[in-house]
Order: sequence, then structure tokens, then C-alpha cells
Amino acid sequence: MRVAVLGGDGYCGWATALYLAKKGHSIAIVDNFIRRQWDHELGVQTLTPIRPLSDRLRIWQELTRQQIELFVGDVTDYDFLSSSIKAFEPEAVVHFAEQRAAPYSMIDRKHAVFTQVNNVVGTLNLLYALREFQPDCHLVKLGTMGEYGTPNIDIEEGYITIEHNGRKDVLPYPKQPGSFYHLSKVHDSHNIMFCCRIWGLRATDLNQGVVYGTMTDETGLDEALINRFDYDDVFGTVLNRYCVEAAVGMPLTVYGKGGQTRGFLDLRDTVRCVEIACMNPAARGEFRVFNQFTEQFSVLELAHMVQTAGQKLDLEVQVEHIPDPRVEAEKHYYNARHSKLVELGLKPHLLSDSLLDSLMNIALRYRERIDASKMMPQVYWREAHNTRRQQATATASPAASGPPLTEVGATTDRR
Amino acid sequence: MRVAVLGGDGYCGWATALYLAKKGHSIAIVDNFIRRQWDHELGVQTLTPIRPLSDRLRIWQELTRQQIELFVGDVTDYDFLSSSIKAFEPEAVVHFAEQRAAPYSMIDRKHAVFTQVNNVVGTLNLLYALREFQPDCHLVKLGTMGEYGTPNIDIEEGYITIEHNGRKDVLPYPKQPGSFYHLSKVHDSHNIMFCCRIWGLRATDLNQGVVYGTMTDETGLDEALINRFDYDDVFGTVLNRYCVEAAVGMPLTVYGKGGQTRGFLDLRDTVRCVEIACMNPAARGEFRVFNQFTEQFSVLELAHMVQTAGQKLDLEVQVEHIPDPRVEAEKHYYNARHSKLVELGLKPHLLSDSLLDSLMNIALRYRERIDASKMMPQVYWREAHNTRRQQATATASPAASGPPLTEVGATTDRR
Repeated sequence: MRVAVLGGDGYCGWATALYLAKKGHSIAIVDNFIRRQWDHELGVQTLTPIRPLSDRLRIWQELTRQQIELFVGDVTDYDFLSSSIKAFEPEAVVHFAEQRAAPYSMIDRKHAVFTQVNNVVGTLNLLYALREFQPDCHLVKLGTMGEYGTPNIDIEEGYITIEHNGRKDVLPYPKQPGSFYHLSKVHDSHNIMFCCRIWGLRATDLNQGVVYGTMTDETGLDEALINRFDYDDVFGTVLNRYCVEAAVGMPLTVYGKGGQTRGFLDLRDTVRCVEIACMNPAARGEFRVFNQFTEQFSVLELAHMVQTAGQKLDLEVQVEHIPDPRVEAEKHYYNARHSKLVELGLKPHLLSDSLLDSLMNIALRYRERIDASKMMPQVYWREAHNTRRQQATATASPAASGPPLTEVGATTDRR
Repeated sequence: MRVAVLGGDGYCGWATALYLAKKGHSIAIVDNFIRRQWDHELGVQTLTPIRPLSDRLRIWQELTRQQIELFVGDVTDYDFLSSSIKAFEPEAVVHFAEQRAAPYSMIDRKHAVFTQVNNVVGTLNLLYALREFQPDCHLVKLGTMGEYGTPNIDIEEGYITIEHNGRKDVLPYPKQPGSFYHLSKVHDSHNIMFCCRIWGLRATDLNQGVVYGTMTDETGLDEALINRFDYDDVFGTVLNRYCVEAAVGMPLTVYGKGGQTRGFLDLRDTVRCVEIACMNPAARGEFRVFNQFTEQFSVLELAHMVQTAGQKLDLEVQVEHIPDPRVEAEKHYYNARHSKLVELGLKPHLLSDSLLDSLMNIALRYRERIDASKMMPQVYWREAHNTRRQQATATASPAASGPPLTEVGATTDRR
């Protein structure tokens, strides 16, 4: 199958591109490297030393004799995107090419507007390009479980049957997203659903949970293929950040009470879910939604799991509650269905001690690259303008030489 | 009360600005005149000869001794918008400043992207400007009944109580908008709801039906204050277009079967509803939704009403079904609640014979300005690219001199 992976230089995109290539599919990566640019803007870097994409692709080819095509450009540039679609003629397009960090979208007005325009226009362009040049192609779009928010009823997969005043209909599940980023995904979902209806496009929206892990069989083939591992306050996902905090002896920073419960999944399941979606395309005109996660945890539960895993590695790990920079329920009902991908063959990698060990070992292995000043939240939802002031270079990396940082306030939860 | 009317040079905006001024409120209009620019782009003009805004405001002041302030600029320009908010210090902002025509948004990709970026960014800018400089100001936002689509259950006002698997919650009513324009309003609604939650802003979303009529007491004070009356295939709303078709002896163009049922209201109720919203502000942190229409009709019912009204004026009016350029259900269940504004004091002007007479008389009065070539649909939802080719000037106005146009196909329904 010919699969174009938009955003194939990013965290999930890179792992997906290699996984699908290894499975024998013909892969093209479309990317403009803006994800690397954001690292420069924020003064952070991935824990793992990733190579330039040209190196990555060359080494992949040397190792596997497989060539991955590359289209360098911005999906918000329609001439570029449509000509890439015309040239590659994909049977499936996997669309990761969006700004994907909630805190980034909440920095200030410019970042909010950028995130929504970038994501919405990129997806609109893709919808038009498919309509015009590849109408039978299956759009596999990365959404997020965050589109649903935390309703007080069970979350279904995209749609809900509502009985009301004696009548009944199946309607899109109501959305209560929690950041300008999550809102952009809701906007995308509505736009895609509409285009499936009017143009007969086929699309699968993968409402993905929070991804953890960095290794897949493919990215592990060679150090040059290593994947991103973000732990900073803006792009770092919670479990990755906890592992890094544990590795440098910082307390795990739990936002607020820590009852915030979300769906989570291993990166190895992300790539498999995308494959399942590609191999089982939506029908023409169908807008299908899969909830793509394998387990749900509260962020406090995760902290305690990391604490326990750390103890096995002789790390003393504290759990600290800090004021929640976000506006969200810190304790709430949460029960989200996630059976469609399992029905299609997903065998989940559940979060285990060994995975936590491996994550923590990665954090320890690259310990000297950790900038401990980049983990405390600097973006607050209630503020209209957050200045992420760059600290002086001389004090930027206390973790590499200094003592563990424990200056963080609030209550300390030693379990 | 100090009220800023964004988009105050437009159809609903102008009538609203004058109505609120007459009621004694201090009014500022914020507009960039892009609505007039779209007329030039499309080669159409309002049936009624509207004056430049500077003339309108000067004459209003001469007649009433009331000065309406004017800020000329684009709400997508944050420096302009925020400085206007700072300078005027409104207690309420009525936000009409969006691209509001579904067909315009469906012309092609550029118009779709323009509509969504223009509307979403304008509203995001307004939310940030209020947060930063006028956080207690009440945002009165024009949404549309088209956000809901045509579900097979009753439509509620913004929210619906859902019981599911033994639990219950009140959630945003599911949205199924039918054009890139309607989608932009759904995006806005989600963005505004979020900002009320995180920043404690107060907002009322007026999900307005299709507006008809052109006269209010204020716009009728002087010919120089006359309001827009759009009848073209892109910006013309259905009842206005029917009246113009009847006036020039063209068959009324019903899209498809004509069972498309929508909420409608008189322009005089639009202005009153906005006043009601302003005088009864939402609480801090509240995102309130009112369905702003007074009656629901199918487009075929409306055609028959215009036919009957025309006969009284000795006009022979035919009703013709033409292929529906849109993708929509041509027959469907529709029952939408609209009680909140009535509970707050709205006394509807229901669609009556006399109103239809007055509309038709306006069409007859300005008959020589009618361009009969601009009423047939030229924008098709199923196409990715519609060329609205400008007809040669020599043949552009057959209605002014030639016979009634009856070349339109499909079945003819003579009742």
C-alpha cells in the first residue's frame, strides 16, 4: 500500500513511517521540520539525540534496502501539498502534521492563532487535495481523546445514540476540549466529517490518548534512527516527563490533585493502530472515529507507578503536587470506550514495570542532556500572555552537575 | 450602555447599530467594509442603494443628534481591534464581523480557507482583547441555527441533557453544520465556550435563523439610511431572493424538493433580540446560547407564501424546483426550541401578508437595479472549485428591459 505520512519527522510520525515501511508498504514522508524549529524557539531539545531526517533516511536505506520518499514543505502551502499528493498517489494519508502541544497553544494569542490556523488550514488543504487529485485515498487523521473533555457520562467512539423527547438519532459525540490545541482538533473533526458527507471522501479519525515510550523495533535498529523523547513542560508528555524527573532526582510534578484521568498508550501501539486503520479503510463517504488508547490512568497513579519503578533502580523518587497550570477538573468521572481497534486486531502493550524500567533507563542513559530547568510549567491557562523567559545559559543545566532540584512547592506526597 | 457593533456596516449590523443608538445606548461601529468588497468580487450589488458609511453616520447624526463612533479596521488585526476595545471600553460587544454566506465559503478552497481563518481568528482576537482589556464586557456573538444541522431529534438551545448507561450530564448540543461557513461558526462556539471557562468571560451565542426584511423604524427614517437587501445567489437569503424573483417575473427557485426546513426571523426581531441579550448579560464564566428565530418554514412553504402574496399584487408567480446546489436533506424532521428570548421579552413579528407585500414592494420599487442573471445558483457543494464567471456587461441586466426569465429547468409547480 502507498502511504504518505504527513509529519513523518515527528515523534509518532517517524515511528509510524518506519513501522509501515518495514511491513512492506511504500512510504513517503511529508514534513517541513517545524517541530525542530519549535525546540529552538523554546530553548529545549529532545532527550534523545535525533539525527537530521536526511541522515535518518539514508541509514534506514542502508540497513533495509528500502527507500522512503521525502517531500519537504508545509501542508498549509496548497501548491506544495497538492503537487506532493499528485506525485505520490497515496492510497492512505496518515496526517500527523499539526502543532500538537496544548501548552504551546496556550502561550499567548499568537501561539493560539498559529495553532488553530496551522492545523485547520493544513487539514482543509489536505481535504481539498484529496478531493481534487486522489478522491479514493483513505485519510487517517490523528485526533485526540482530549476532544471529548471529561463528561460525566461514558465516552463513546465518535458518536452517541441520543434518545430525546421520544425520538432517537446517532449524533457526533459532544466535544469539550481543554486548550486551543485540543480545540483545533475538534475543528478538524467537524471539517473532515463534512467533507466525507459532501464529497464522499473516506476518513478515520484516530482520537489518540497520551503516548509514552520512544522505542519501536524499527527505531531501535540503529542509534541513528532513534526517536524523539520530549520531557519539557511544553511538548513533554506526562509519563516521559516523570521518568526524566525521576532520573535526575527531581520530584515528580503532579499538576494539582492529580485525579486528572486520561487514556494512554505505548508508542508501539500507536504505529500498530495506524496500520490497522490503513489496512481496514473507511468506506467512501464514511467518517469513522476510533478511540486510540489502551489503558486509562490518573496522572497521580502514573506518578506512583514511576515512584515504584524508580525504587527498583535505587532511585529515591518523591511525588510533589504543584498548582495545576491548566484549567481542568482535578477529580472527575472518566470511562472511555476503546474497543474498535481491538476488534480489528490490536494487541495492546500494557504499561508494565519493564516498560517503565526501559523508559527510566533511557532517561538515565541520556542524563547529561537533561535540562532540569525546562520541566516546571511556565504556561498557565488562566493567563492571556505567558513569557517563557529563557534562563541564562550558565545556569541552564543544573542536572548535569548539580544536586537534585527540590525547590518546588506545594505538598509532598511520599508513598 | 456602551455597545460596540463589530460589522456595523453590514445587513444585520447596520440595523442593530441604529436600533441600539435610538434606544439611547452609546454605540461604536467597527468595520473594514469588506462586505462591500465582496459585492465587487461577485459582480453583484444590494437591491437597495446603500450609502457609504460616512454618509450614513453623518445623516443619522443630523436626524437624531446622536453620534455613532466609528473604528475602521479589520478584527483579524489584533493591534487595531485591541486598541479599539481599549479606546471605547464597551460594556457589550455585538460581533457580526464575519463572512456570513454559506455559498461564498463553498466557492473553492481559497474561499473556504478565507472564511474559516477570517471568522475564527477574528473571534479569537476578540476573546483575547476582552480578556486583556475589558474582561467584564459581555460578548454577544452571532452564531447560526445552521450549526445544529438537521438532527432527527428536537434541537435545544445550545445544550442537551444526555442520559447514557445510567449516568447523566448536560453537554453541548452536537453540531452537524452544512458548509465551511457554518463550520466556522461551530469552531467559534467551541472557542468561546472554552474562553468563558478558563478566563471567566461572559458570552451569549445567538444562533440566528435566516433573516428576512430590510426595514426597521430607524433605517426607514431617511432614504440615506436604507439597509442592504441582498438577493444574489451567494449573499441573498431565500425569502429576499424569492421576492425579487417574483418582482421580475422569474419563477421562484426552490432548491430540490424544498422540504429543507429552517428557522426564520424578521430583521426587526434580530435587532430586538440583540438588545435583549445586551440588557440581560450572561454571568461571568457563562457561555449562554439562545436560538434566535421566531418561526420555522420549509423553503417550499415560503415559495408558496410569496406566490400567494404576488397574486394579490397581480404578479404571476411560478414556483420552480431546480437541482439543489447544496448537499442537504431535502425532507427531514425539524423541531427547534426557541423560547429563551421570548421569556426575556421578545414579541415576534411573525411573517405576515403585509410584510410580504412590503418586501415585494421594495423589490418592485428598485426593480431597475435587479440583475436577473445573479439569482441562479453558481456554487455547488459537490464541486471543489466553482467558477462564478462574470457575464458580459451587455447582457448582465435582462430584467431591466427584457422579458421575464423562465429558462430554468426541472419541474414546475404551479399552485
